[in-house]
Amino acid sequence: MQIRKAKGNDAPAIVEIILPIIREGATYALDPDMSEADALSYWMAPDKETFVAEEDGVILGTYYMRPNLAGGGQHVCNCGYMTRASATGRGVARSMCEHSLVHARTRGYRAMQFNFVISTNERAVRLWQSLGFELVGRLPEAFRHPAHGYVDALVMYRLL
Amino acid sequence: MQIRKAKGNDAPAIVEIILPIIREGATYALDPDMSEADALSYWMAPDKETFVAEEDGVILGTYYMRPNLAGGGQHVCNCGYMTRASATGRGVARSMCEHSLVHARTRGYRAMQFNFVISTNERAVRLWQSLGFELVGRLPEAFRHPAHGYVDALVMYRLL
Repeated sequence: MQIRKAKGNDAPAIVEIILPIIREGATYALDPDMSEADALSYWMAPDKETFVAEEDGVILGTYYMRPNLAGGGQHVCNCGYMTRASATGRGVARSMCEHSLVHARTRGYRAMQFNFVISTNERAVRLWQSLGFELVGRLPEAFRHPAHGYVDALVMYRLL
Repeated sequence: MQIRKAKGNDAPAIVEIILPIIREGATYALDPDMSEADALSYWMAPDKETFVAEEDGVILGTYYMRPNLAGGGQHVCNCGYMTRASATGRGVARSMCEHSLVHARTRGYRAMQFNFVISTNERAVRLWQSLGFELVGRLPEAFRHPAHGYVDALVMYRLL
């Protein structure tokens, strides 16, 4: 699996990956009904670096990195990761996160923050913890899950 | 003191209040060098409701309210409050926060979240705690303070 910067012609594959996850509305606090164009604009926004994980010419996952805040907060980055549904369980998210930790250091970031990990996304929580992220905050009932109703969201963080 | 929706002709007073605070760079994670126009666009952005606290025709403070996130996170609001330097210590921020808690309930929000309270801003931390906010997260060294270097930032939250 190769992880590289996303190019313009990766857009269709990126949409294939991110749109079902946005539509499901269970793991990201984004409008589930947002248009395909808006979803792509969000994921490949000018303030983000966007990457893809590719194997045998197939894009299996994608992630972005951006400064989490401006001014005195710009040394902390934020990332979002999404894996193609058919490729789950193959370590794609882990590989992307490992890649992002290396890339963040080369970019001079001093920490990485996940602002809003849905507590029901236990697989993600365990994965981030195994990669050195600490659960530094719990937001009671901050996310309305399409199946489970109001559930907690977590703030996860690690110094680099 | 009257707290009301900001109008277009409040813009000069709002700029007088927010620009010195942004320039100081000690309490908000915003670019300290942002232009006056960008500062105003940020504070009065389309996704925000902006209020002013007025006494005897003088604007003493201003705050905004917005959904903190979209989709499954849109029932949590976020606010930012700024008080005119010459009016500190007169309860302006407290009055604005109390107003915002009432307004948030009328808007149907279920919680209010402060994403990034600088730990050195002890006066604010105590004030928010006295208004029912809990310190739900601590982000180690997440803010570079112009005087104190890297300091922690706090996530504060209360259900409504």
